[in-house]
Amino acid sequence: MSSASPVTVLGLGPMGRALAAAFLAEGHPTTVWNRTPGRADGLVENGAVEAATAAEAIAANDLVVVCVLDYDAVRAVTAPHTAALKGRTLVNLTAGTPDDARATAKWAASHGIGYLDGAIMVPTYLVGGPSTLVLHSGPADLFELHRNSLRAVGGTCVHLGSDPGRAGAHDVALLDIFWTALTGVVHAFALARAEGVTASDLAPYAKGIAGLLPEVIDAFAEQVDTGSYPAGGSNLRSAAAIMSHVLDASRSRGVDSAVIAAAHDIATRGMAAGYADDSYAHVAELLHG
Amino acid sequence: MSSASPVTVLGLGPMGRALAAAFLAEGHPTTVWNRTPGRADGLVENGAVEAATAAEAIAANDLVVVCVLDYDAVRAVTAPHTAALKGRTLVNLTAGTPDDARATAKWAASHGIGYLDGAIMVPTYLVGGPSTLVLHSGPADLFELHRNSLRAVGGTCVHLGSDPGRAGAHDVALLDIFWTALTGVVHAFALARAEGVTASDLAPYAKGIAGLLPEVIDAFAEQVDTGSYPAGGSNLRSAAAIMSHVLDASRSRGVDSAVIAAAHDIATRGMAAGYADDSYAHVAELLHG
Ligand SMILES: NC(=O)c1ccc[n+]([C@@H]2O[C@H](COP(=O)([O-])OP(=O)(O)OC[C@H]3O[C@@H](n4cnc5c(N)ncnc54)[C@H](OP(=O)(O)O)[C@@H]3O)[C@@H](O)[C@H]2O)c1
Ligand SMILES: NC(=O)c1ccc[n+]([C@@H]2O[C@H](COP(=O)([O-])OP(=O)(O)OC[C@H]3O[C@@H](n4cnc5c(N)ncnc54)[C@H](OP(=O)(O)O)[C@@H]3O)[C@@H](O)[C@H]2O)c1
Repeated sequence: MSSASPVTVLGLGPMGRALAAAFLAEGHPTTVWNRTPGRADGLVENGAVEAATAAEAIAANDLVVVCVLDYDAVRAVTAPHTAALKGRTLVNLTAGTPDDARATAKWAASHGIGYLDGAIMVPTYLVGGPSTLVLHSGPADLFELHRNSLRAVGGTCVHLGSDPGRAGAHDVALLDIFWTALTGVVHAFALARAEGVTASDLAPYAKGIAGLLPEVIDAFAEQVDTGSYPAGGSNLRSAAAIMSHVLDASRSRGVDSAVIAAAHDIATRGMAAGYADDSYAHVAELLHG
Repeated sequence: MSSASPVTVLGLGPMGRALAAAFLAEGHPTTVWNRTPGRADGLVENGAVEAATAAEAIAANDLVVVCVLDYDAVRAVTAPHTAALKGRTLVNLTAGTPDDARATAKWAASHGIGYLDGAIMVPTYLVGGPSTLVLHSGPADLFELHRNSLRAVGGTCVHLGSDPGRAGAHDVALLDIFWTALTGVVHAFALARAEGVTASDLAPYAKGIAGLLPEVIDAFAEQVDTGSYPAGGSNLRSAAAIMSHVLDASRSRGVDSAVIAAAHDIATRGMAAGYADDSYAHVAELLHG
């Protein structure tokens, strides 16, 4: 009989609590701590040990998961405890930039702390369930060592490579897509409403449009990686024309149009760069630094 | 035996050709015309009659479909032929703004021309197939009269209401979502590449993220229509924080960040408006004119 390894969770915001609950549900003895005490209710009932201090929580287990607001908060929680963390593995599931992750990995290495940097790609209510996705990066051997514990969070748990910034790079890129798209959705609802179309009228068609994205994502990915941008069904010229219809329609109703204007500006620069007959994906080359 | 009614198609660009091919495939006697001659090959082999002039094409049939570059082109094609169009039905499947559609409807009414304004929501290669979506607006009786012919284009053919701008309103709003989202995708590929992550590495996860959109679209739609914005899994404050990570990561690699910066600016204004603890959808109210 293999027994589940013990885990410490630092940070009991909505996500830290969801993580701790998932570890407990998979039978991992779980020690928890939060800066503001009194956030462990529900968890303690399910067997969690609430530590009085971060030092105590860290000392309890070899695997220490931290999930707090941001990397400043990670520093606030961990920097006073480098001695206690030495020889243990810190798995940081706090969201941030790839450079945040790399800087933290450097700091950890300089103190003899094992470090994995992860990104949780789902909202709290999915954590522990089959559609959870957590991306990890950092030393492969550390990931292997703790894989069975990290898997308790549910769903898909992937190691992306040794660069500690790699999970964060995926995270920012994916959130870029998600929040840019949702900004488009909210803008479309505002534009539709200005035209007397309710959001609920538009929603079924909006979902249909969203359903076209996966196919285009694959096509654009291949184009960007190969540097060859065949237009296929629609070219940059027609994309630019469409964006200018959206822009005109928004402006004529006084709907804020900064985002679609910025997108249209990229398309316009793509036309100027000679990409009019190519796929819209060609503008990726104008965005690179 | 019911026989399929005859149709005229004005404009043989990629979309006009696809429409004519779909009518022919469903057995509609089809007359075609294009400003630049010689674009009817393939269609004529399948039974289309190529008219020498627009006047001749219009005179041939009661149902006249026009699908050209833009509304200026529609005017160029139709304005000289108001007498010939009188008493017939013009179905304009050219993309434009809702106001373009309304102005054209007014012009048509003043000349005794029946007018429906439609929006084709799929690329040419899907036209005629089951996933075609065409939205129509204008007089319901005209739509009923020509419904069986219009259905030949395949898939779903919907009448949205009598306001001739209604199909165009859906069109611009849906294309707003599509092209804003794809701008996010292309930007994410550029950002990932700057971090050493290929587009093909990112694509499977990007498709997963796109798969989350339908659920959020439904939730946001209800919020926008009811004016009540419960945060659920994630609030505006965390959306703003995420966008600022994306912005920081982009800027640190010199990746153009105008679109995500504009989105972040909306989120920032939402925070200032006191929506921090609400759903991101609350910013729709800042976008309205
Ligand atoms: N919620 C989600 O759906 C979701 C999804 C994916 C990723 N994430 C990421 O997961 C992380 C945690 O998110 P969350 O939803 O749990 O809520 P959050 O509001 O981002 O973080 C709250 C947690 O951070 C702690 N904290 C903040 N500043 C601190 C400091 N200076 N020192 C010590 N602790 C500090 C809070 O402690 P106090 O209670 O003492 O304030 C609390 O435990 C974030 O990076 C977030 O982006 C969240
Ligand atoms: N292609 C798609 O996947 C797609 C999808 C949805 C909607 N649409 C919409 O469908 C419409 C037609 O698109 P398309 O793909 O066929 O190609 P397009 O390049 O938008 O339009 C080409 C057609 O417009 C004609 N045209 C342009 N200016 C004209 C003028 N001043 N007078 C007369 N004819 C003129 C062209 O005639 P000549 O051959 O003589 O130049 C040709 O027949 C557009 O509004 C487009 O937005 C297209």
